[in-house]
Amino acid sequence: MMDYDYKLELKVRDYECDMQGIVNNSVYMNYLEHTRHEFLLGKGVDFAELAKNSVNLVVVRAELEYKFPLASGDQFWVGLNLVQSSKVRFDFLQDIYRCGDNKLILKAKITGTAVNQRGRPYVPDEIKGLFKSEKE
Amino acid sequence: MMDYDYKLELKVRDYECDMQGIVNNSVYMNYLEHTRHEFLLGKGVDFAELAKNSVNLVVVRAELEYKFPLASGDQFWVGLNLVQSSKVRFDFLQDIYRCGDNKLILKAKITGTAVNQRGRPYVPDEIKGLFKSEKE
Amino acid sequence: MMDYDYKLELKVRDYECDMQGIVNNSVYMNYLEHTRHEFLLGKGVDFAELAKNSVNLVVVRAELEYKFPLASGDQFWVGLNLVQSSKVRFDFLQDIYRCGDNKLILKAKITGTAVNQRGRPYVPDEIKGLFKSEKE
Amino acid sequence: MMDYDYKLELKVRDYECDMQGIVNNSVYMNYLEHTRHEFLLGKGVDFAELAKNSVNLVVVRAELEYKFPLASGDQFWVGLNLVQSSKVRFDFLQDIYRCGDNKLILKAKITGTAVNQRGRPYVPDEIKGLFKSEKE
Repeated sequence: MMDYDYKLELKVRDYECDMQGIVNNSVYMNYLEHTRHEFLLGKGVDFAELAKNSVNLVVVRAELEYKFPLASGDQFWVGLNLVQSSKVRFDFLQDIYRCGDNKLILKAKITGTAVNQRGRPYVPDEIKGLFKSEKE
Repeated sequence: MMDYDYKLELKVRDYECDMQGIVNNSVYMNYLEHTRHEFLLGKGVDFAELAKNSVNLVVVRAELEYKFPLASGDQFWVGLNLVQSSKVRFDFLQDIYRCGDNKLILKAKITGTAVNQRGRPYVPDEIKGLFKSEKE
Repeated sequence: MMDYDYKLELKVRDYECDMQGIVNNSVYMNYLEHTRHEFLLGKGVDFAELAKNSVNLVVVRAELEYKFPLASGDQFWVGLNLVQSSKVRFDFLQDIYRCGDNKLILKAKITGTAVNQRGRPYVPDEIKGLFKSEKE
Repeated sequence: MMDYDYKLELKVRDYECDMQGIVNNSVYMNYLEHTRHEFLLGKGVDFAELAKNSVNLVVVRAELEYKFPLASGDQFWVGLNLVQSSKVRFDFLQDIYRCGDNKLILKAKITGTAVNQRGRPYVPDEIKGLFKSEKE
């Protein structure tokens, strides 16, 4: 298992499960987003505040590998690492594990950028300070 | 403030907010359902297990009073009382308060019943044991 | 069946169904909201545009009677009437019927108001023009 | 623009938009799933019916490129092609375009398999018959 900069523990809610009795595929995107925003908030970067000021953090690409489904009653945790992937892009490497047995549920790479008031992508200084340095 | 049989603390997730910047009205139904299921689970009544055995707990009526909206970053708690309202129905009285200042956010009465394999409404014994006795 | 000012036909999407194999209770709130917004838009009242201008249409109360569940594959229509219920409030009477057999699925009364930039409730003139006159 | 085996036209619903005033990233997964299920249903493959019989169509991988956001009022269409990608996997190539100007909104590759009652992945005959032949 990787080392993670940040971890968030959550629990499946029954309304998130679909007729197959497992968490619907789209809901993992919610888990991942919430984890990113909590991570950022803990670092002093408030997604909602930025949006109000017309600095929009946006996702430009998402890759998800579904390994095993979560079901009703499951507790799980999301691990997150943030790396810069280009001049104007950053990747959130996010993995979901079931609590208890640490079974791997999902691996994701969510690529984001920020768009300023004039619609130009850039990496805000607040985000730059969060990148895992290569030596660590 | 009322006394509650059960309380659950949660936090607003940004994807639950809509373009008005506040939690969408439908999402409170999610909060309320999750709280009911957690309450029941704590009492040994597993909604998912029951559904698998074709005993379906169903909502027949919902009344919600929206007092004040939740927004990004808000923590809140849901208080719950369960009372029998008729031979085959029970009411979940559920109120949502913002943490910190205990501002009242929403008052709800969710009326449920159980439907057995033959589609007949009834109150399962597991649920009956949960009603707040009148003298308390 | 009542006469309705407006009708919208929709179809159940599988992700809207939960582990009971039926549309989750909260999703009907989505159907009702979408129908209200489409009705308003058809009358020239744009919810999103109003929100951008800090005129927020808000729900203050919701009553829902769940009569029969919708399931995967079901088509349904939502009927809507709008009436003024007080000086600053208006009621959307909204019923959902399954297509084909017109089986009644849900009856709802959604009470709304508008809140202006200073947080005061009122009924905007654009809304007033939409009320069903009593004589009709 | 590619040729598509199947197209579905939909409209953004306001509750699908988040505080940035645009459709939330997770909602595109809903659009894509609904389009796949409608495509399959039109070919006689009923996702819900299969699930009831413990044949579960599952997503094992998703790649999404977010090109431009959808917003309130937007109509859009989803184009779909289905190709076999390995012995036990198939890819849904799904692109979303805004109606009117055919602006590209999202490109996705959703990789699925089917899991039988014993949990083994395979491609059901009903699905095999749907693959675009290479010569077309």
